[in-house]
Amino acid sequence: MKLNDLGEFGLINRIAPQFQNNLEMHNLIGIGDDCAVMPFNEEESLIITTDLLIENIHFLKSKIPSEDLGHKSLGVNLSDIAAMGGEPISAYLSIGIPKETEIEWLDSFFEGVKKLADETNTKLLGGDTTKSKEGIIINFTIIGKQKTDRIKYRKNAKVGDYLCLTGKIGDSGGGLNMILDDLEATGETESYLIKAHHRPHPHLEYGKWLSKHTGVHAMIDVSDGIDSDITRIMEQAEVGAEVNLENLPISNELKNASNRYGWDYYQLAVAGGEDYCLLLTVDPKDFEKISNDYTKEFNSELYKIGEVTESRGRIEYLKNGEKYTFGKQGFDHFQS
Amino acid sequence: MKLNDLGEFGLINRIAPQFQNNLEMHNLIGIGDDCAVMPFNEEESLIITTDLLIENIHFLKSKIPSEDLGHKSLGVNLSDIAAMGGEPISAYLSIGIPKETEIEWLDSFFEGVKKLADETNTKLLGGDTTKSKEGIIINFTIIGKQKTDRIKYRKNAKVGDYLCLTGKIGDSGGGLNMILDDLEATGETESYLIKAHHRPHPHLEYGKWLSKHTGVHAMIDVSDGIDSDITRIMEQAEVGAEVNLENLPISNELKNASNRYGWDYYQLAVAGGEDYCLLLTVDPKDFEKISNDYTKEFNSELYKIGEVTESRGRIEYLKNGEKYTFGKQGFDHFQS
Repeated sequence: MKLNDLGEFGLINRIAPQFQNNLEMHNLIGIGDDCAVMPFNEEESLIITTDLLIENIHFLKSKIPSEDLGHKSLGVNLSDIAAMGGEPISAYLSIGIPKETEIEWLDSFFEGVKKLADETNTKLLGGDTTKSKEGIIINFTIIGKQKTDRIKYRKNAKVGDYLCLTGKIGDSGGGLNMILDDLEATGETESYLIKAHHRPHPHLEYGKWLSKHTGVHAMIDVSDGIDSDITRIMEQAEVGAEVNLENLPISNELKNASNRYGWDYYQLAVAGGEDYCLLLTVDPKDFEKISNDYTKEFNSELYKIGEVTESRGRIEYLKNGEKYTFGKQGFDHFQS
Repeated sequence: MKLNDLGEFGLINRIAPQFQNNLEMHNLIGIGDDCAVMPFNEEESLIITTDLLIENIHFLKSKIPSEDLGHKSLGVNLSDIAAMGGEPISAYLSIGIPKETEIEWLDSFFEGVKKLADETNTKLLGGDTTKSKEGIIINFTIIGKQKTDRIKYRKNAKVGDYLCLTGKIGDSGGGLNMILDDLEATGETESYLIKAHHRPHPHLEYGKWLSKHTGVHAMIDVSDGIDSDITRIMEQAEVGAEVNLENLPISNELKNASNRYGWDYYQLAVAGGEDYCLLLTVDPKDFEKISNDYTKEFNSELYKIGEVTESRGRIEYLKNGEKYTFGKQGFDHFQS
């Protein structure tokens, strides 16, 4: 059997159980959420996340400015910290670099890292640099912290919870379409979407605020598209979900571009991925207050997009009350 | 300018200063030792290390059994924890895998990881799996802990200190020679050397014990060969060094193989690298007691190989009192 037959999630499901023994005894929580959790005093835990980005798999070097790549490489990891409601402390960067890489390219990459690191108070404390034969390889590990009782595990989603988003979805997928189809980025719509793809901003402040509320049950960041990300919550919480497409927060820019280029913006919103906002489930009795306070705090809407249901393992999409069927959705790193 | 012109250390020296601001204010210690240090209570610090291994740069997939590769990938990181005298707590593995990779190969890789993780009480808590286009990519990050006042920073080496090793050197370089020259591994000597290259054992117990002694001033693991590793101590401590070649701990197996295949075993010992024993500097007035106690504790010798000198930035090699000159030594990832 080859990896291709098993897929990424298949591999993780095969390996993870071997490493689960004795974790609970040590109060450690492993594979299955955005971050691993390591309690370090009575009240607080360290939260740890790591992400590997490979040229020509996760990005095209000729298509993304190196400063944006620096920003994004750090940003996608900080997004995992945001999903735990945590604050970043320190970052560790391993980077593999072909020897013919221009130093100016590297300087600008590190400028992107540094700006976002400074902005989010993340200290780059260590790493590894090595040559690579085939393209740039980037691995960030981030250590953050969070009050232990504020961590919103995926498994804590409850039937009846509202599914909510902290930001618009699909823009990043639209930006990727532009890039892959070599559509010229001269218009404002185009550059808005490409920026959404290249410079996602981690929702640390939203995550931190939301984590203080006991009415928020589960939280995850939108990395692979809500279809995949809701599936992960469903797997951990043993629930199902219903999503109302007409309630998805979709930008006018994405709608305009979809009309212009013939895209299905629901498809992009659901399966495009890399939006890096937060997806959360909220107790319905607390939703109104949390939602109102959230809008006061951030001058932004907490978007209700659906509900957690009993139909374990199944996401149902509805459009104005009618069942809606997509083609292949979501994203499996090895199979797409 | 290209990376090739600057070299790995040049790149690190270019980048590191940008990220050093405010670290001391936060009690964080960054780039420059085997691990980063993050104090987490009055007495203890977290120590963190990360290493990126790339197929055809750091290993040849066809030449190393996958279980050995799993062992070694984790082992080289644990060796950095050993150099801080620490104990490992948790590990995070990012792995890039070509889709045609055999699942059996992966199973055996993870078996190698798991055995060494269990043996050293390291918990694999998280990671990232993704496809890669060109070969296997492995990045481990390890979090360990150590009493803050027992950390032996490189900068603490003092003029007059004895340079010591916890194990034999050059065997791994000899094993690599065997592998690269396709020398058959039928004899005991050959398999001994190849095992030294494929299954380095992190010196965690030695490092922990040594770190309890105030007479031990600086410690580093031997990853790139003592020539490079002594250079790193010299840079941080602003000192020089003198190494007595006749005192280098070199195995009979390496001497025999060197005679058979025409290798220079001093060259392998000094610049071969990947020995993953510990190099330390010891106060001369404490050496005898530490050395005797060490032998009692481990039934193994603490090898004295030279001294720290005043001639800043220069390593002098002596053989039976005579100056000895090598060709190109050490190892720079981008230039060799």
